[in-house]
Amino acid sequence: MNIHSKFSRLGTDAAPGQEVRQQSGGIEALLRGDAITGRSVDFSHGDVDAFAPTPGSFEVFSAGVESGGKQAYTEYRGDLSIREELAQHLASFTGAPVDGRDGIIITPGTQGALFLAVASTVSRGDKVAIVQPDYFANRKLVDFFDGEIVPVQMDYASVEGRAGLQLGQLEDAFESGVKVFLFSNPNNPAGVVYSREEIESIAALASRYNATVIVDQLYSRLLYSGVDYTHLRAQKIDAENVITIMGPSKTESLSGYRLGVAFGSKEIITRMEKLQAIVSLRAGGYSQAVLRTWFNEPDGWMEQRIREHQAIRDDLLKVFRATAGMKVRTSEAGSYIFPSLPQLSVSGSDFVRILRLQAGVIVTPGTEFSPHSENSVRLNFSQDHAAAVAACERLVELVERYRA
Amino acid sequence: MNIHSKFSRLGTDAAPGQEVRQQSGGIEALLRGDAITGRSVDFSHGDVDAFAPTPGSFEVFSAGVESGGKQAYTEYRGDLSIREELAQHLASFTGAPVDGRDGIIITPGTQGALFLAVASTVSRGDKVAIVQPDYFANRKLVDFFDGEIVPVQMDYASVEGRAGLQLGQLEDAFESGVKVFLFSNPNNPAGVVYSREEIESIAALASRYNATVIVDQLYSRLLYSGVDYTHLRAQKIDAENVITIMGPSKTESLSGYRLGVAFGSKEIITRMEKLQAIVSLRAGGYSQAVLRTWFNEPDGWMEQRIREHQAIRDDLLKVFRATAGMKVRTSEAGSYIFPSLPQLSVSGSDFVRILRLQAGVIVTPGTEFSPHSENSVRLNFSQDHAAAVAACERLVELVERYRA
Repeated sequence: MNIHSKFSRLGTDAAPGQEVRQQSGGIEALLRGDAITGRSVDFSHGDVDAFAPTPGSFEVFSAGVESGGKQAYTEYRGDLSIREELAQHLASFTGAPVDGRDGIIITPGTQGALFLAVASTVSRGDKVAIVQPDYFANRKLVDFFDGEIVPVQMDYASVEGRAGLQLGQLEDAFESGVKVFLFSNPNNPAGVVYSREEIESIAALASRYNATVIVDQLYSRLLYSGVDYTHLRAQKIDAENVITIMGPSKTESLSGYRLGVAFGSKEIITRMEKLQAIVSLRAGGYSQAVLRTWFNEPDGWMEQRIREHQAIRDDLLKVFRATAGMKVRTSEAGSYIFPSLPQLSVSGSDFVRILRLQAGVIVTPGTEFSPHSENSVRLNFSQDHAAAVAACERLVELVERYRA
Repeated sequence: MNIHSKFSRLGTDAAPGQEVRQQSGGIEALLRGDAITGRSVDFSHGDVDAFAPTPGSFEVFSAGVESGGKQAYTEYRGDLSIREELAQHLASFTGAPVDGRDGIIITPGTQGALFLAVASTVSRGDKVAIVQPDYFANRKLVDFFDGEIVPVQMDYASVEGRAGLQLGQLEDAFESGVKVFLFSNPNNPAGVVYSREEIESIAALASRYNATVIVDQLYSRLLYSGVDYTHLRAQKIDAENVITIMGPSKTESLSGYRLGVAFGSKEIITRMEKLQAIVSLRAGGYSQAVLRTWFNEPDGWMEQRIREHQAIRDDLLKVFRATAGMKVRTSEAGSYIFPSLPQLSVSGSDFVRILRLQAGVIVTPGTEFSPHSENSVRLNFSQDHAAAVAACERLVELVERYRA
């Protein structure tokens, strides 16, 4: 395969945050009626103005700059004293030990951790199980490293009390030779949390087939009331076969600092560091200091953040559920909601462009997450509460206007 | 090739900055005499405490944080208004147009730019010409993407007025099917600048064979008195076949912010952005703001920085040239110096470890840059002047002690 075909599979035109590069050619012919005015909302990512970064994060960054070279030039895997602090927090949070010296790496964002983890476990022709729907980069990463994607469906829309992963399909995937299973929990885009039984089954299957599991737990701190969360790495599974990815980018609104961590398997972390040396050297040195605020927020701060997000979620659910033909599962964690739309007279991707042009509302098309999600759109509702509700009202108004 | 053999080629034990992870096992048996006391100097990278970041950089960063979401979430290729500012500066600096919208990408460090550029031009089996010696990551990147390295020697030690690239070897390389030529100018580690004739020949050869050239110009602003610099991209060569990489990480001591840029070929930049979306999403949003200080330093600031570095260079040259059997070419740009050592009774890699243990002096072994540079060591002399000179005096004292 030459370089052109390799990159033709890496489309980013519909990727969150890239809407500014979309051409609007041809869409005018499809437009009905006038634009609806209202404050623009970009649901493709959280709004760090509405939900401000962790108190003290900027001050810790400044102190990092002040301390100079020691903070600018860390080991490729990140500053040791920060890794050791984090190891304690993450061990306590996930319920299984983390080795600060050899079992954790600090990366430029959780995206950096995902990239390194996949690059360190997947080589040409390896089979990798990917959930549908799941975070759009997962499949692209496997593609980029010439792995073979084995899809596993998640019936999030039709079940309750569990994510809805088709465990039979996952077992078939392992049986067919899958070496790596990569998934997000809470799921991005559906906002659902895997049940204890699902996680235990994943651990048992991965153990039986000696597969590596990479679990992206980016949103695992933002759990709504009544939701239980099970950490895969604390279950019966060889610790050397699990990499867990987290980061203070979302819940804590620290995305602007680009920080993530991967922890678990020492062998895989060692490979990830070797690769980080040629990919980006290290996470920004001064930014690494900001990790000292993580799992170290002021009392009550996280609880309030969760409460505020839950209130927005509840209002958006009301707006969507009042619309005939729209279906949406209650998000259990994180700030994503993934409603499906009724039959429209335009395609899902055209509707997404129309939404931007006529309503000032940016959402991410469902096809970024699964080829079977053409009728769904993902919204990150970590936004100004009132603006988010008003934007969703414009969204459903356009649903009515373009209904088939 | 499986993942284990792939990563076994990516050794980082001797890579700059990783010395803390080296085991010292076995070295004690080789030690002669006592340790020499003195202030430790880590020549593996510049000292941002000795040479402070650009005035105003922290203030611009703070303003970026203050401006919030707009700065945190940029396009994957970086903030447009910053790209447009940079395009003007870089066009004027290099003498050829830069398209701010489509012809430049902001990356996490110049390492990020190098990674993306190689990943976007080299696929399995492609032949890539790599200079020996040159920046250690160059060969590792080609290895990682399963390209085939075609070495081209640079006789920096035996010539004057040019870098010493063996142009005949380069032509043979293109003749044998090399598609990409990747090199640093000024050269890292030798600190030499390619002559106008060399750059014109590279342009002519690349054009004749329709090859892509990636030129890492990280140090091209730090030129010592009397040195002319020729920008490849301003020569007779198809602009779509050239990617130039720079960044404010070294000369400007802004490494702690992790910023780099690649500019030139629109097609390659487009691929690089697609890949950045899954590698790290974007350069740290807040950090991107710091680029507004680049090529925008206070009057006289750069001239003073160059003068101070040149003074350190001159003193180190004196120390090395007073030592029998040590050879060193005068660095023409940047802050690297690459002396060769006389015959010792221990191997080059053992001597590097001994230096660290007995003299508190960290240098990078020559074999990181070329298999033919076992007798050389690289020093980044962007350090406190007096401490650097004293450390080099300890280095030559140990050369005497271990002389064969």
